[in-house]
Amino acid sequence: MIIIINKISNSRCINSQQYSLENLLNLCKLTDTIKNIALTSEGLKYLKPILSDKRAILYFKQASTRTFLSFQNACHILGISCSEIRDTSTSSEVKGESELDAIKTFSQYVDLIIMRHPLSDFIYEISDNLPDNMRIINAGSGTNEHPTQALLDFYTIWKYGLENKKVAFVGDLLRGRTVRSLALLLNKVNGIKLYFVAPKVFQIKSDILEQLDVDYEITDDFEKVLSEMDVIYMVRLQDEYGGTNEVINTNKYSINSSNINKMKDDAIILHPLPRRNEISVEIDKDKRAKYWQQCENGMWVRVALIMDMFGISDVDLLFNKYIEYIT
Amino acid sequence: MIIIINKISNSRCINSQQYSLENLLNLCKLTDTIKNIALTSEGLKYLKPILSDKRAILYFKQASTRTFLSFQNACHILGISCSEIRDTSTSSEVKGESELDAIKTFSQYVDLIIMRHPLSDFIYEISDNLPDNMRIINAGSGTNEHPTQALLDFYTIWKYGLENKKVAFVGDLLRGRTVRSLALLLNKVNGIKLYFVAPKVFQIKSDILEQLDVDYEITDDFEKVLSEMDVIYMVRLQDEYGGTNEVINTNKYSINSSNINKMKDDAIILHPLPRRNEISVEIDKDKRAKYWQQCENGMWVRVALIMDMFGISDVDLLFNKYIEYIT
Amino acid sequence: MIIIINKISNSRCINSQQYSLENLLNLCKLTDTIKNIALTSEGLKYLKPILSDKRAILYFKQASTRTFLSFQNACHILGISCSEIRDTSTSSEVKGESELDAIKTFSQYVDLIIMRHPLSDFIYEISDNLPDNMRIINAGSGTNEHPTQALLDFYTIWKYGLENKKVAFVGDLLRGRTVRSLALLLNKVNGIKLYFVAPKVFQIKSDILEQLDVDYEITDDFEKVLSEMDVIYMVRLQDEYGGTNEVINTNKYSINSSNINKMKDDAIILHPLPRRNEISVEIDKDKRAKYWQQCENGMWVRVALIMDMFGISDVDLLFNKYIEYIT
Repeated sequence: MIIIINKISNSRCINSQQYSLENLLNLCKLTDTIKNIALTSEGLKYLKPILSDKRAILYFKQASTRTFLSFQNACHILGISCSEIRDTSTSSEVKGESELDAIKTFSQYVDLIIMRHPLSDFIYEISDNLPDNMRIINAGSGTNEHPTQALLDFYTIWKYGLENKKVAFVGDLLRGRTVRSLALLLNKVNGIKLYFVAPKVFQIKSDILEQLDVDYEITDDFEKVLSEMDVIYMVRLQDEYGGTNEVINTNKYSINSSNINKMKDDAIILHPLPRRNEISVEIDKDKRAKYWQQCENGMWVRVALIMDMFGISDVDLLFNKYIEYIT
Repeated sequence: MIIIINKISNSRCINSQQYSLENLLNLCKLTDTIKNIALTSEGLKYLKPILSDKRAILYFKQASTRTFLSFQNACHILGISCSEIRDTSTSSEVKGESELDAIKTFSQYVDLIIMRHPLSDFIYEISDNLPDNMRIINAGSGTNEHPTQALLDFYTIWKYGLENKKVAFVGDLLRGRTVRSLALLLNKVNGIKLYFVAPKVFQIKSDILEQLDVDYEITDDFEKVLSEMDVIYMVRLQDEYGGTNEVINTNKYSINSSNINKMKDDAIILHPLPRRNEISVEIDKDKRAKYWQQCENGMWVRVALIMDMFGISDVDLLFNKYIEYIT
Repeated sequence: MIIIINKISNSRCINSQQYSLENLLNLCKLTDTIKNIALTSEGLKYLKPILSDKRAILYFKQASTRTFLSFQNACHILGISCSEIRDTSTSSEVKGESELDAIKTFSQYVDLIIMRHPLSDFIYEISDNLPDNMRIINAGSGTNEHPTQALLDFYTIWKYGLENKKVAFVGDLLRGRTVRSLALLLNKVNGIKLYFVAPKVFQIKSDILEQLDVDYEITDDFEKVLSEMDVIYMVRLQDEYGGTNEVINTNKYSINSSNINKMKDDAIILHPLPRRNEISVEIDKDKRAKYWQQCENGMWVRVALIMDMFGISDVDLLFNKYIEYIT
């Protein structure tokens, strides 16, 4: 299920589809500017007071160390104080309180709620029941949406050029919410072509394909398309959301020293991480391996997103103020 | 058991009875001033460095997400760095260390200990064994005391006027430490009248009544007093501290759309939260429902309390310095 | 196993043996200077922005509240933002990720990794696989190394004078990594003499003795040496790493009111904590009891170490800048 919402206030980041191409490109430029400023200690010290009057809570009812740390450090960069709930049970629920009441309570203390939740729809319930000026970010809602992952993926591809690129998604495309969200974002870009590369039982669902305006291709033959791709986005064959009985030769959907040389010299390899065997460790040293940078980008895109949600979205103004600060 | 202590140093917040009416009123004014300053980003940035040289530990041996977050965000507002122990077991105890030694260890690192503990008397043992300049706040000791809850309740009532008011406590008054502490604080106020509204098996204990100088009334008939009250303080029929076999018609001790209109127009409804059915969710939108504000007040009263404990208690001085800062 | 490594970059703190006597003495002076600056609120406010552009992660796969809090507060003093992993399991491992990949992920977000791990060698694997400019501190690796404990012990003894001192280690010297590391550090000091006082089954292993250049003595008779010692370093008879069947009269290896008066008037008693019965609680009030100060010193030595690892190691420069700041 992908819910398309045309009008979500800027104080909410609920699903990736709420962003127009213009939004996305501005967010990319904002991220770039922040990363440039943050190259020096001085720059980081300039960023730190910007939102130091704000307080956030990281409400993670579903464990996700990676996403948690990425958001927390994004807050730290902006001087935002963080509280956290990482338990799967909270004391108030023991006392018979509704989860909505629990979150309304926390919302009295903070300006920003970053929420990861096993239920797909709960983020909408929270968004509907809290005041408009409360900032709310969906850090993963069930198997459905994980918009900031899509934003960081988009940014990383943007860094290497978006237009007229050939992008392959490889692995379990059936259950990977990452792929589903990113495909819909890339659909906004002119001239891009998408390749969905997976064994049939793990192919992407038709609901996504039906929404695509750009060209796309469906295949289970990774080796055939490998050499043409500009971007290869690998995903795990995920067991943790339940599996299939069919035996898949996962090796056919992996990058390793025996097939990497078929890739274009300026192609890039992405992966939302964590990986298992679909990318061999020895590939990490290849210049086309960009998944660690993608991971770091996640933090910076979240810095940009939070700034944007608090009204700091003018790239030039931010940079000019920084120049003022250091001179 | 309520232990009355006439002389507790200002570096300790152990029980609500240590505060004189003068203390309480100054704390209310300090809280108000802080809330006013905190209305703007600029004001919050003025508050943040005030105690930024201090370090606190939140030592919560008993889970309480609400109180924990309220204190932690109070610290954040004042720039106090927080460490936390939220586990029910710590590694040192596994190693055979006494809990007093464990806390003496933590006290080497910090300036302020905020402690919630299942044992009623442990806070006194800690207070006796740590140096005078160590700030210690009781964030709930067993079923006995929770002084900052009483302070925030007092502040919230003060906001709407204390004198000559009629205040009803409704629900399980037998085991609610909140009610017990607040009743003794309100007892310091001239002309106030208290109403204890509960089924007989849940009525307040005589030890509290014996300490009251103000007028009070005992009843099990909520509907009868509802229309006269200025303040209605609802509490849960708490199951978590063990129950009774008698079947109580809890509906008789609740506020909902069928009886709220009997209330005075300028009355206020309070609740320490979490609630169950004693206040219906639809009441949240009524202007008399003040329990969410009461919850937020909790954070601000704690900010004021911590400032006061570190010697910043002069309301005028604080405000004048703020005016200086912004001009 | 003690691995001696002559050349470890300054961006790593892996084992106590990497430090030369010159390193150690500079670290002691740096610690002293920082403690002096930190005596006032103003001083602490001077220290706080120094590394406020840095972010750390405390990765504790093995519980250790004491060490955790000591490091976390050291970071707080320097304005370093902290993330933490205190769980014994992380979500990524559930998803089949290698622990190295998990840590490489975290390293994208931070500048400093403080790691405690049950496996002795894992710290070396991490150190080898992360870039040189990533700061990494070993906060305890299996039963093998705990270098910052050795550094804080060294500093505490240095405070009272190192040269020509007689230092006794008393208790379980077989398994106490603390004693092993400290003995090797003290071995660098001229004229010091070490006494290893333990029941035979708990005596220190020969691998340490073989590395000693200074004089030392082995004995199981605590009372005999007690009166001659300048420093008595007590350790627990640790059960948590597995025990022995032999019944030991632990009382013979303890300090209490019946034997403390045999000690020299200016001797000092140290203990890495937590203690059990080897030091009676009534000894805490004796002026020779320095273990609580030693505990606090742990935090300050860690502040100094972190500053040093980020290139702030010039004692005079630090102090002169502070004088500038306050005048």
